[in-house]
Amino acid sequence: MRSLKIGLIGTGFMGRTHSNAYAQVNKFFDHAIQPALTAVCATNAPKTAAFAAQWGWESVESDWRTLVNRPDIDVVDICTPNNTHCAIALAAAEAGKIIICEKPLAMNADEARRMVEAAEHSGQPTMVSFNYRRIPAVTLAKQLVDEGRLGRIFHYRAKYLQDWTINPNLPQGGNTLWRLDAQAAGSGVTGDLLAHSIDLALWLAGPIAQVTAMTETFIKERRLQDDPDTVKPVAIDDACAFLARFANGALGTFESTRYACGRKNQNTFEINGEKGSIAFDLENAHQLEYYNHADDGLVRGFRTIPVWDGNHPYMSHWWVPGCAIGYEHTFIHQVSDFLDGLERGEKRVPDLRDGYATQLVCDAVLASARTGMWQPAR
Amino acid sequence: MRSLKIGLIGTGFMGRTHSNAYAQVNKFFDHAIQPALTAVCATNAPKTAAFAAQWGWESVESDWRTLVNRPDIDVVDICTPNNTHCAIALAAAEAGKIIICEKPLAMNADEARRMVEAAEHSGQPTMVSFNYRRIPAVTLAKQLVDEGRLGRIFHYRAKYLQDWTINPNLPQGGNTLWRLDAQAAGSGVTGDLLAHSIDLALWLAGPIAQVTAMTETFIKERRLQDDPDTVKPVAIDDACAFLARFANGALGTFESTRYACGRKNQNTFEINGEKGSIAFDLENAHQLEYYNHADDGLVRGFRTIPVWDGNHPYMSHWWVPGCAIGYEHTFIHQVSDFLDGLERGEKRVPDLRDGYATQLVCDAVLASARTGMWQPAR
Amino acid sequence: MRSLKIGLIGTGFMGRTHSNAYAQVNKFFDHAIQPALTAVCATNAPKTAAFAAQWGWESVESDWRTLVNRPDIDVVDICTPNNTHCAIALAAAEAGKIIICEKPLAMNADEARRMVEAAEHSGQPTMVSFNYRRIPAVTLAKQLVDEGRLGRIFHYRAKYLQDWTINPNLPQGGNTLWRLDAQAAGSGVTGDLLAHSIDLALWLAGPIAQVTAMTETFIKERRLQDDPDTVKPVAIDDACAFLARFANGALGTFESTRYACGRKNQNTFEINGEKGSIAFDLENAHQLEYYNHADDGLVRGFRTIPVWDGNHPYMSHWWVPGCAIGYEHTFIHQVSDFLDGLERGEKRVPDLRDGYATQLVCDAVLASARTGMWQPAR
Amino acid sequence: MRSLKIGLIGTGFMGRTHSNAYAQVNKFFDHAIQPALTAVCATNAPKTAAFAAQWGWESVESDWRTLVNRPDIDVVDICTPNNTHCAIALAAAEAGKIIICEKPLAMNADEARRMVEAAEHSGQPTMVSFNYRRIPAVTLAKQLVDEGRLGRIFHYRAKYLQDWTINPNLPQGGNTLWRLDAQAAGSGVTGDLLAHSIDLALWLAGPIAQVTAMTETFIKERRLQDDPDTVKPVAIDDACAFLARFANGALGTFESTRYACGRKNQNTFEINGEKGSIAFDLENAHQLEYYNHADDGLVRGFRTIPVWDGNHPYMSHWWVPGCAIGYEHTFIHQVSDFLDGLERGEKRVPDLRDGYATQLVCDAVLASARTGMWQPAR
Repeated sequence: MRSLKIGLIGTGFMGRTHSNAYAQVNKFFDHAIQPALTAVCATNAPKTAAFAAQWGWESVESDWRTLVNRPDIDVVDICTPNNTHCAIALAAAEAGKIIICEKPLAMNADEARRMVEAAEHSGQPTMVSFNYRRIPAVTLAKQLVDEGRLGRIFHYRAKYLQDWTINPNLPQGGNTLWRLDAQAAGSGVTGDLLAHSIDLALWLAGPIAQVTAMTETFIKERRLQDDPDTVKPVAIDDACAFLARFANGALGTFESTRYACGRKNQNTFEINGEKGSIAFDLENAHQLEYYNHADDGLVRGFRTIPVWDGNHPYMSHWWVPGCAIGYEHTFIHQVSDFLDGLERGEKRVPDLRDGYATQLVCDAVLASARTGMWQPAR
Repeated sequence: MRSLKIGLIGTGFMGRTHSNAYAQVNKFFDHAIQPALTAVCATNAPKTAAFAAQWGWESVESDWRTLVNRPDIDVVDICTPNNTHCAIALAAAEAGKIIICEKPLAMNADEARRMVEAAEHSGQPTMVSFNYRRIPAVTLAKQLVDEGRLGRIFHYRAKYLQDWTINPNLPQGGNTLWRLDAQAAGSGVTGDLLAHSIDLALWLAGPIAQVTAMTETFIKERRLQDDPDTVKPVAIDDACAFLARFANGALGTFESTRYACGRKNQNTFEINGEKGSIAFDLENAHQLEYYNHADDGLVRGFRTIPVWDGNHPYMSHWWVPGCAIGYEHTFIHQVSDFLDGLERGEKRVPDLRDGYATQLVCDAVLASARTGMWQPAR
Repeated sequence: MRSLKIGLIGTGFMGRTHSNAYAQVNKFFDHAIQPALTAVCATNAPKTAAFAAQWGWESVESDWRTLVNRPDIDVVDICTPNNTHCAIALAAAEAGKIIICEKPLAMNADEARRMVEAAEHSGQPTMVSFNYRRIPAVTLAKQLVDEGRLGRIFHYRAKYLQDWTINPNLPQGGNTLWRLDAQAAGSGVTGDLLAHSIDLALWLAGPIAQVTAMTETFIKERRLQDDPDTVKPVAIDDACAFLARFANGALGTFESTRYACGRKNQNTFEINGEKGSIAFDLENAHQLEYYNHADDGLVRGFRTIPVWDGNHPYMSHWWVPGCAIGYEHTFIHQVSDFLDGLERGEKRVPDLRDGYATQLVCDAVLASARTGMWQPAR
Repeated sequence: MRSLKIGLIGTGFMGRTHSNAYAQVNKFFDHAIQPALTAVCATNAPKTAAFAAQWGWESVESDWRTLVNRPDIDVVDICTPNNTHCAIALAAAEAGKIIICEKPLAMNADEARRMVEAAEHSGQPTMVSFNYRRIPAVTLAKQLVDEGRLGRIFHYRAKYLQDWTINPNLPQGGNTLWRLDAQAAGSGVTGDLLAHSIDLALWLAGPIAQVTAMTETFIKERRLQDDPDTVKPVAIDDACAFLARFANGALGTFESTRYACGRKNQNTFEINGEKGSIAFDLENAHQLEYYNHADDGLVRGFRTIPVWDGNHPYMSHWWVPGCAIGYEHTFIHQVSDFLDGLERGEKRVPDLRDGYATQLVCDAVLASARTGMWQPAR
């Protein structure tokens, strides 16, 4: 078994999910390559050491430039706030490393383009972590679309609703709330949530030609997490909705917010085609809804497919039919797929170029929200 | 158009549903026979007159014997408390009338048998009002079973859960609470609710060979509605559950209660066969769940069939696809089916003999609950 | 009891629902006024006569001008294709009649404005038939909003999805398919389906300030129903989606189509407020989803409220708790509410002015779809 | 950190789930004790070695007696077929080991009693692996019951439905199908599935006083997995249903089968109390349904609680609110709870005595199925 030496930058929420994925993947998937938890990097030394001990990282770094240039590192895995992705990726490409990067790929499309160009120039494989593609029900959806089971697509309909910022007393910025800080995050729900929805849409229904959008910031100012006496304007988008025309003629509607009381993680999509429809909801991620227009009309209806049989994507690697997997497994799947690509010398998606495509749509959405005009999105 | 002169006895809840059905049926179904609301009978003269005015009954009676013997009456429709069904039906049979009777057919199987024998001796058609057979989704279930879509049946699983007597201060007996009075009702949930479940089971899965049962009365005594200072023991069953072996080898489970907090009218059944399964819930009566084992394994799951397309039972007579009908429509359907039988000179089910079959199971259930032994049920 | 003499124009789908409502309302609701089915009017004399016989209309007319000017008629009820509403309403106002009109009120806002002005000049009450306001679950939603249970509203999200025109061989125009003919219908899904969604939105969340929209015609040409050898371009919108900004600052998303395979009548809305959320789906119209943020966090979640208890809107007039009503009942409720307004001499909504407000939004939507620009919507 | 040296016997399905639990627990839960994967034992040496390599077991054994008597082993974890549990447990108790045992505890209550007595004599802690208690939604249900939120319990209703043996060509016995072999399994669905349902019932609603039951074997004979030319009678129960009376007066219904087409792992329970109801379904294990009778009647209904907030049992240890966990996590939770008990020197349940209590009910169920009589169950 060959070792793939990982250097992880960032020990927050995504640092945890990636650490777990590297540790678990070989227990459930057969690969000739095994990720080695070689080094982890974050600025707070004691916390980083504790993190390393808990997850089994062999060494720690406090400066990402050091990690990126360590000769024993094969993969640079970027799990830091969005405003650092570009610089790290450019340095990693320069150092000839394989790049894995959390989403959204960058602060804007210009950064993303530079990252793609650098990585493609280096010739190393890349991956952007749009982990929801690896939910078995979503992978199944892709398979059904590719098999032509929906026929021509008329409609794509996506939502990503949460409610965790509805409290006006929640502060912004700082270590755990940087997603509310435009300096660190680039945007609000557009980059954080809609990026997921857009990536799935591009994968499932093809390129988006143009968009018209609106954004809103409901709570106009918040205290700073790191300086509670200071109140500052909120610069991110709390909510964003847009209409889209796909290149294939389908119509799209997209909406995201962190102000939908009671919706914790409602990432949904529905696709209506001439031969059938499919619908997915992350809050019931073990299921896919499917309507087959060719079914006998007497007994036709949406089928709730529990996606946990042995013939469903990824599921034969886990337990037995009827046993659900969860959120963390999407990260294990994406590492497994990536290892598979390395072993076969084949490209796997989504790579940085896919992350750039999503960034182009995000930029078009934000531009349309500013201008009130339809914007091209690719 | 020929007129069928109805004499309705009873102006309670069922009197209303039957009145509405007679008035509505010819607006939605084409029949050569039209029910005439000829006479309505109840003991309270002013209330009966008001009822007649509201629903369009042409005349009123206060003594059911008078009504039964009126020569202008074709049909005696019995909507009174259970302890009066037998006497009225025997008199109606004697008078050569068509009999329509609310469920449960009688206080016990012995009464029911005498009613059947009298009616069959008279040679007139009969109907027992197990209206839930006429929910389009339930009729569709019957059609699927008859077409062999489930194959051999392994399991039949029924519940009928309500919660309206959970308040210990609810009195018993009297005009509106006779269902809590064993003298008037014969039994509690067994005759009131399980009779529905049993009728559907016999229709959908065939005869029940034997049963073992338990009953319980949770609130042991209640005040009388008509005499609030008097507290009396409660003699009905508040809850009843039984196991059944069907003649075809299937296993059955049945349960009913009026103490299931939050369940208002949850009348459910599920049938598991070798080729598939179906499931129904009265609280979502516009749907039937269907699982077809022969479906492509990749996209197999329970289908939620909205039973409101033009090709579904009864539905072409109503509005357009996607428009729900409700509770009252089951009574309209059963009148329509009955008229159809009269027009064609054909027997329609359920008739009094079917009501007797259900009564035999009810009696076996109650006997088993008393003795603790399995009892034959037919 | 006083009689209110109805003159109905149109014997199609809506003619049936209105006829039924007039015949049923006094059986379930106590009113001093009783609708009289005085005259029905349609062009095809034999069919009109049969319709009158079936539903109990006392007389027939073939020219709506005659009916409108009959002195014995109190109410002119307009159930004809959209392109006739304006002329009939203007004539009815001129004749001093009460006007009831099907939705959408008119072909465009200009017609609608003239109808409102004429009706208000006549001083007679009016009603536009946005029947979905009278679904008990929807009326309950209004009540919850008015009680302040949601607090400040952040989001309004509506869909109205159907699939009945997905077959490219379906012809356009003619007697039963005039909804596909822009000459008769004015628009496609915008006037037919989104008008419902918009009316509910205005009622539940207040005025819409501006919109941006897109429309699409997926099947570009169809045969004529009345001349099957002739193929003509399809001029209606098959699908329409728009973003909205409400006057109160809430964001709205709206979408409608007749190309959503498997969605028969999926008219949904969801409202997210600072204190809670509600969600409704016409395909499960007996339920309202409600999330109360103030609930104990340990047991907090969306409640599925079965809207069939005695304390729910309209329900005490029907059967017993747990018994569903259906589509047709919405029309009975609106007649009952209208009679109540007449009896009390009070205005009831939605009246023609409300129909005009919806028409203004529809016009803004269609204008935005043409221009690609945000449009004011009131 | 102190090490707890585990000796695992059995490398099948449960061997995998336990191995994963030991490896994962300290990454997510803070414990002073860390399980060490010291030794794994199974008869097939090459397969055992491969299993050890994959999961990180430090040594292998092929004879469980050797493992049980190794002085470096603290815990004997029994994941072998049911007919070996008793002998291993008795030896482990004799050797003074901590015992963890898969369910059902034994082949019958007599074995179970001997196991309990031996373990209690040894004075070491024990655990029986009824992992479903550790689903957060189920643990929450227990918490709600214990807080008195349901009040007096009227009804307990459980099902455990699967369909994986519906194919008559499936063989019996052998390495992977020993659950169909009465010699190895003791019983069919009663020990395999109903044992789970019974354990949850005893935990949530208290002791069961008596039962009446029926069992059935639908497919009467099957080929042997290890000798495909030999057909033998099937001696296990394919399906089992029973009625129960709880010591507290509640009524119970229980049913299990492997012949419910389309039900993969439908382990459900519903409890109806005087103050409310709760309902759970393993096929949607991230949710708990809860009905609070004290809610304002206008907005009362079953709440779907997504059990993934930080205040829900176990969930603060995982990801962020809205991120589901899966089947394997129940095993991690039970190890964590067990470690917690060891650290605090406190008893944790379910221990072997709880496994014995369930076995008593299973025996009573099987005895009642044989005799047709009610049987005491404790």
